[in-house]
Amino acid sequence: MIRLEQQLLAGNQELAEENRAWLAQRDILALNLLSSPGAGKTTLLERTIRDLGHDLTIQVIEGDQATDRDARRIAALGCRAVQINTGSGCHLDAGMVRRGLERLDPSSGAVVLIENVGNLVCPALFDLGEQAKVVVCSVTKGEDKPIKYPHMFRAASLLLLSKIDLLPHVDFNLDEFRGFVAEVNPRLPVMPLSARGGEGLAAWYGWLHAQRTHEVRA
Amino acid sequence: MIRLEQQLLAGNQELAEENRAWLAQRDILALNLLSSPGAGKTTLLERTIRDLGHDLTIQVIEGDQATDRDARRIAALGCRAVQINTGSGCHLDAGMVRRGLERLDPSSGAVVLIENVGNLVCPALFDLGEQAKVVVCSVTKGEDKPIKYPHMFRAASLLLLSKIDLLPHVDFNLDEFRGFVAEVNPRLPVMPLSARGGEGLAAWYGWLHAQRTHEVRA
Repeated sequence: MIRLEQQLLAGNQELAEENRAWLAQRDILALNLLSSPGAGKTTLLERTIRDLGHDLTIQVIEGDQATDRDARRIAALGCRAVQINTGSGCHLDAGMVRRGLERLDPSSGAVVLIENVGNLVCPALFDLGEQAKVVVCSVTKGEDKPIKYPHMFRAASLLLLSKIDLLPHVDFNLDEFRGFVAEVNPRLPVMPLSARGGEGLAAWYGWLHAQRTHEVRA
Repeated sequence: MIRLEQQLLAGNQELAEENRAWLAQRDILALNLLSSPGAGKTTLLERTIRDLGHDLTIQVIEGDQATDRDARRIAALGCRAVQINTGSGCHLDAGMVRRGLERLDPSSGAVVLIENVGNLVCPALFDLGEQAKVVVCSVTKGEDKPIKYPHMFRAASLLLLSKIDLLPHVDFNLDEFRGFVAEVNPRLPVMPLSARGGEGLAAWYGWLHAQRTHEVRA
């Protein structure tokens, strides 16, 4: 089984590198958004599109086991979006994303945000060819998720701590959370934010612009 | 790949049936608790043990990628608990549970609560030999999880809607949620509750007692 998993991951890696080259040729920044179900990825995407849509061409690939609800939410904002359904599958892989990119046909210079299947475990292992993995974790889930799901928090380049408007109503110690993050990945920046209230979004938008700029210069 | 997955699942099924026979011989009720990360499974277990520990012998198998935090939380209540760490693995399987049961060595007549890895996708496919799967879903995750992760909600025999003390602070429409549940699994009972405030726990405890009684009679 282990050997087969290695072959599977190696095959995925090859396709991911092809995606990376394909994206670079078109000057496209692609980010892989990951979280457990219901951390608020789609709501954050909606808000980001509304707030940055005039500056950046944002286009979206939505991954889900079933339904096209998320792609419809994004399309309702006038944003190009395609839905990938994985059926019983637990993650997007590079082959699915390649086919998604072909359907999306993103404009040169676009920012493609890929919303992965809601799962804090399996998607951590699969490179999609993205420039960076962004993990979203909400304050309603407790402080200890980084040490309990370390693979995800090690694979990520940015951690968005979502739903901070709920902090007064839940038991969540931000210092303890930061300590757990530092235990598994000391270089991982943590940005607390609320897509509902708007707190903290400027830092996320700044990071996104910096990635875009970096990509253009690279 | 599909054929390999089928072989893997068939192998798991065989071990699960062995677990089921092993548990029946010892008159043990085993339940498989499933949710995405941070839905409040461990907090619900703690509360259940505190409230029912005088009536039922509750013992616990904790599944997690890393750390023994949850088993320590349960053991702190004077309850027997063993921790299984899956490493990069995304679910418990019947073989892991068999070894966990051997370490736990549950008393005859006990209720064994198995807390699966926090993941709303993969664990749905793996029978552990339990009597029933109980899925826990919190009001902070939105209404649409049943239709987005249908395999889990079809596999479950009971749905505990957790953290209802947060209802005044989140956008969550209970009727819409019930509608989505009915779409994927019309026979799935939904019990709203809060392990923090105590609301709705009586229904869960009643269900647990009924399962226990049914098991004894069977």
